[in-house]
Amino acid sequence: MKKLLLIPLLFLSTHLAAQSDSAMIKRIYDEALTNGRCYVWLESLCKDIGGRLSGSDEAEQAVKYTYDLMQELKLDRVFRQEVMVPYWVRGDKETLHMNFKRKKASIKSGLAVCALGGSIGTGEAGLTAGIVEIHNFEELKTKDVKGKFVFYNRPMDPTHYNTFEAYSGAVNQRWAGPDKASEQGAVGTLVRSMTLRLDDHPHTGSMGYGGKVETIPAAAISTMAAVSLSQLLELYPALTLTLKMNCKTLPDKLSHNVIGELKGSEKPDEIILVSGHLDSWDLGDGAHDDGSGCMQAIEVLRILRALNYTPKRTIRAVMYMNEENGLKGAKEYARLAKKNEEKHIAAIESDAGGFTPKAFGIKGTETQTRHLVKWAPLLEAYGVHLKGNGWGGADINQLKDQGTVLIGLMPENQRYFDYHHAESDTFDKVNKRELELGAAAMAALVYLLDKYGM
Amino acid sequence: MKKLLLIPLLFLSTHLAAQSDSAMIKRIYDEALTNGRCYVWLESLCKDIGGRLSGSDEAEQAVKYTYDLMQELKLDRVFRQEVMVPYWVRGDKETLHMNFKRKKASIKSGLAVCALGGSIGTGEAGLTAGIVEIHNFEELKTKDVKGKFVFYNRPMDPTHYNTFEAYSGAVNQRWAGPDKASEQGAVGTLVRSMTLRLDDHPHTGSMGYGGKVETIPAAAISTMAAVSLSQLLELYPALTLTLKMNCKTLPDKLSHNVIGELKGSEKPDEIILVSGHLDSWDLGDGAHDDGSGCMQAIEVLRILRALNYTPKRTIRAVMYMNEENGLKGAKEYARLAKKNEEKHIAAIESDAGGFTPKAFGIKGTETQTRHLVKWAPLLEAYGVHLKGNGWGGADINQLKDQGTVLIGLMPENQRYFDYHHAESDTFDKVNKRELELGAAAMAALVYLLDKYGM
Repeated sequence: MKKLLLIPLLFLSTHLAAQSDSAMIKRIYDEALTNGRCYVWLESLCKDIGGRLSGSDEAEQAVKYTYDLMQELKLDRVFRQEVMVPYWVRGDKETLHMNFKRKKASIKSGLAVCALGGSIGTGEAGLTAGIVEIHNFEELKTKDVKGKFVFYNRPMDPTHYNTFEAYSGAVNQRWAGPDKASEQGAVGTLVRSMTLRLDDHPHTGSMGYGGKVETIPAAAISTMAAVSLSQLLELYPALTLTLKMNCKTLPDKLSHNVIGELKGSEKPDEIILVSGHLDSWDLGDGAHDDGSGCMQAIEVLRILRALNYTPKRTIRAVMYMNEENGLKGAKEYARLAKKNEEKHIAAIESDAGGFTPKAFGIKGTETQTRHLVKWAPLLEAYGVHLKGNGWGGADINQLKDQGTVLIGLMPENQRYFDYHHAESDTFDKVNKRELELGAAAMAALVYLLDKYGM
Repeated sequence: MKKLLLIPLLFLSTHLAAQSDSAMIKRIYDEALTNGRCYVWLESLCKDIGGRLSGSDEAEQAVKYTYDLMQELKLDRVFRQEVMVPYWVRGDKETLHMNFKRKKASIKSGLAVCALGGSIGTGEAGLTAGIVEIHNFEELKTKDVKGKFVFYNRPMDPTHYNTFEAYSGAVNQRWAGPDKASEQGAVGTLVRSMTLRLDDHPHTGSMGYGGKVETIPAAAISTMAAVSLSQLLELYPALTLTLKMNCKTLPDKLSHNVIGELKGSEKPDEIILVSGHLDSWDLGDGAHDDGSGCMQAIEVLRILRALNYTPKRTIRAVMYMNEENGLKGAKEYARLAKKNEEKHIAAIESDAGGFTPKAFGIKGTETQTRHLVKWAPLLEAYGVHLKGNGWGGADINQLKDQGTVLIGLMPENQRYFDYHHAESDTFDKVNKRELELGAAAMAALVYLLDKYGM
């Protein structure tokens, strides 16, 4: 009899909890979509500051901007963490010319180019050499590239529905290409920009010198330039290229992670983290990558505060510094968290653009994943699914050994690589509602994490 | 023994069918994303022709363009259906001025305005009158609006996740507002544009004179103009407006639906229809509304042809004329289908923008819906869900009494009303991959409908 009574009561209490959760989540979305502030904050970050590569003045302006912003929101605590970051500067606008003879006239024709982050320069006179087009590292081994440029021209594969998979399948050319080419005696590399669009924006991004072979200059060219160059190479295999860039790496500089928090009322030692990265590449304004994620993280705190929500646990918004070329901020944050014995029960990262959110990808134990997936119906009403076997994100991944469940916001991704690391990543590419929906989804998940713990 | 053997064999055959369907759908997507043509077709439709309101020269150019395009694709049959359509012309650019006194000076300040489709003009001298701000028809009944403009200023509600619901909740002001105001003696109406954005584009759209009250001029103002006007009305309640527009309705004109088809090899009498509408409002280029849907419909046929697919049933792409202000093309199409005893087993409409497809909404019997929903796993791999209780679309809805299952493509909708019926609905707002994914989803569903029937 007792048992029989218990089941309906339990059912009723679960049912009522789901109802009140659903009502609270509706309030969160209403607040985000009616009084949302993240869009106007992003406008200021993009238009008043702009691109903010680690070590730059703009990066420090962004530190000050977000610090002041969170102070104005009267959060319970706003602070910075010092961190030394790499300081690479692009220098003058790079140039790249094709040199070939047509009807006996010497032609010198420009291509849209940018240095890859971390690359060395070419010297004042520039670097002139012949060119070999390569599509993968296997093919590279079969070619004589001594004294030449290697031109990596394998496009992102458009048949992937998920554009991140297309990116993964091509980006090794950018990252590892320079060292691989240098190993075989090449003097420089060009890589087809990592985008599915055919346009004239070169897309930068980081590359890695492993330190085992000679460093050589590395640049990206636009997809249209890649098509032109490839076609002209067929006609004029002897064509040479002249690349000029005076980018360089200067000594590391002091920078900061910026952190704001709402203090937990019952379990202040349990931290729920929401985050983006404050640095961006220098070409555009870092609107989608990742001004959006930063402004959404702060918006999560603003929404909860605006709804007079008293969190049980501590909710922390973290603007990581130096995601793009070093992850120094995330590493320092994780080091300090460990040193100070902080307990991060969950970490959410938004670093895939300010587009309509479609899912959260969960990286955690089976138990953690099962616990989160229970909440799926509450978020699916807003088009957001909960998916196991996720990735989390590059910054929060530094917390992976601390038992923290890592959760990555996965927005609609078809447009992301149109703008990624290019001068076209500007504020006008972000839609107000899409940005706000991302913040609302994060706030809803934070609310559930706070209420039920992990 | 026989029974035991049968079950695994049946299971195996279902399993193999699903595998081969999944492989075919992958080929469809690969073709759309690799060799897609709909984007470049749309560029031509938008940039070489542009806005194409029913009755306009541009509408006839679009008829010719799509007819020729389908001829070039060497479809089995390309034809036109004659249809008489309303012919409303906007005339000169409309103007709207607020007149009020500030520091004793007379101020005349302009607001961004456009006539609503079908509205009468104001006459050469324009229409000058006072103004009453109204938020709903209940409130209208309580106000004295005689001899005045009624200014409908109820915004679309941003708290709807689905922006079409926000539109539904506000659009009666545009559609029914003029007659309701006229009933109470108003001399003209202005409506806040149907968009969730705050910007300076007025959004047009159709309105309906019921014929029972005097017709009065009806215009839309931008959301920014609506905010300004509302604020100034608080300060200067005696403010008057001067509206000038010389739009008018001319006699009906002859126009056309344009139709292309692949003939069925086994059941040619069973027709599967894919469609968009060829007409658009005149302010922008009708890129999302609905050049996208038309180009996707033709792309479905191109994809199937490119894959050397021989359909069992007849696959028909229909570009309907006059969806925006009369549905005359769709009505004529349905009339002829009935008269000619054509059997449309399914009709798909794409008229919600060229954004990433998220679902198909099904309007059909329970049996029809259950039949379609079985295929859900095949499409969910591409982010497309199958949803019962759907709407279909305004054009295909004319087939609703013919036993046809009606299926509407439902793309991601957050951005749709940013551009809807405004000068900002231009080609640059459409993303190539998003458009192609819509065409691929439609082609995949057409393939399943063709293979398994209804």
